[in-house]
Amino acid sequence: MGVVYIVGAGPGDPELITVKGLRLIERADVILHDRLVSRELLRFAKPGALIVDVGKSPGGAGPTQEEINHMLLSYAAKYDVVVRLHGGDPLVFGRGFEECLYLAERGVPCEIVPGVTSGLAAPAKYYIPPVLRGVASSVALVTGREDPAKGVRQVDFKKLAAAVDTIIIYMGASAAGDIANDLLAGGLPADTPVAVIKSAFFPDEEFKVFRLGDLGPVPNPSIIVVGRVVERGLHLRRLRDGTPS
Amino acid sequence: MGVVYIVGAGPGDPELITVKGLRLIERADVILHDRLVSRELLRFAKPGALIVDVGKSPGGAGPTQEEINHMLLSYAAKYDVVVRLHGGDPLVFGRGFEECLYLAERGVPCEIVPGVTSGLAAPAKYYIPPVLRGVASSVALVTGREDPAKGVRQVDFKKLAAAVDTIIIYMGASAAGDIANDLLAGGLPADTPVAVIKSAFFPDEEFKVFRLGDLGPVPNPSIIVVGRVVERGLHLRRLRDGTPS
Repeated sequence: MGVVYIVGAGPGDPELITVKGLRLIERADVILHDRLVSRELLRFAKPGALIVDVGKSPGGAGPTQEEINHMLLSYAAKYDVVVRLHGGDPLVFGRGFEECLYLAERGVPCEIVPGVTSGLAAPAKYYIPPVLRGVASSVALVTGREDPAKGVRQVDFKKLAAAVDTIIIYMGASAAGDIANDLLAGGLPADTPVAVIKSAFFPDEEFKVFRLGDLGPVPNPSIIVVGRVVERGLHLRRLRDGTPS
Repeated sequence: MGVVYIVGAGPGDPELITVKGLRLIERADVILHDRLVSRELLRFAKPGALIVDVGKSPGGAGPTQEEINHMLLSYAAKYDVVVRLHGGDPLVFGRGFEECLYLAERGVPCEIVPGVTSGLAAPAKYYIPPVLRGVASSVALVTGREDPAKGVRQVDFKKLAAAVDTIIIYMGASAAGDIANDLLAGGLPADTPVAVIKSAFFPDEEFKVFRLGDLGPVPNPSIIVVGRVVERGLHLRRLRDGTPS
């Protein structure tokens, strides 16, 4: 019986995985990885290691979560070290918990190895802090998705607008316009700055800034950051880019 | 003129620093580090590197932020690679942004290297996910501190109670009882589970679970997690500990 390590690969820059995560990739007999995992990381796998892409394309092709769970179980029966590599952190809008629970219920040991979540690392690349003394004391990490059973958004953005200073939205690209309307209805000013980071740390990365009142759908996948901290980041970035390095 | 790297050391386990962070420690001419940084990481510094403890003890002794800024500036004038090592992530309730801004305003290049924040890694060690499909769609990372100018808590916990599913509180140890009262007044049930992780990943680590209605002050420093996800984590942990590994 092997051990399944549920590992966060970090946000896409292969140097932003943890030391522990990289060592597990080097030791793994099998690696099952998401689409949003740097291909450069997989080059650290040992010769002969089995590498399985279990990622979903934006259209939805790829194994179901149930199929991934079955694969983890059957690989753990055959191999000593199984690594399930998630983009970002496996517990922050990943399925790391469900996978570990599935395995634990069947007597297979699992361990969770955190990673830097994309929702914090992507803004940091543009000097945007999620919180900042005197500007923001709270940040919410939320999903922009709807509840498929109820057909309503899972997060109440109207309430959120009044309760936290910074809002970081995962999986909200296509719904960004609707979310912006809810945030405006909840009391956020139309000139609240919004940063959109598409495919952070990947070759097709894009960074754009909007006012909340002008926000519509954005490309998928994007991290969306709403709040005054965005302006502070832009200020530091302008200073920093004017600096020889 | 050197470069100042504002680096997140991660939550205390030396293996949870990023690969990039570790490489910068190995290259650094000078390292200025917080109290909550693993001493084992400092052993990777090159021979002759200058290592400066700029951490504050709980009583408050240690250099002021202004003094740390001055030190970063003067070291950058003398050395090529200056690393400012923060516990966790430098932008999540650290002063990494302020330090980078201070340097950029004076023409000194800085770079921010994210780390795994303790508020997410500490619960993950106990299998507690910050969000979880069907249970929690949003998580807020917040400070428990008061605004020193206004004498009121910086975060409105009553509003927060109704707006997000999981609340993770940094620097809220001594105020935990007052915060719990605000969360109850905001509508959270008295039996809402609360996990308290003291000194996560350090030798004096402690993990305790409370009901929100019973929460009083807890030891400093602690990460406090409020929400139904705590129960799911406890369930997985019970299964996992019953499993040979």
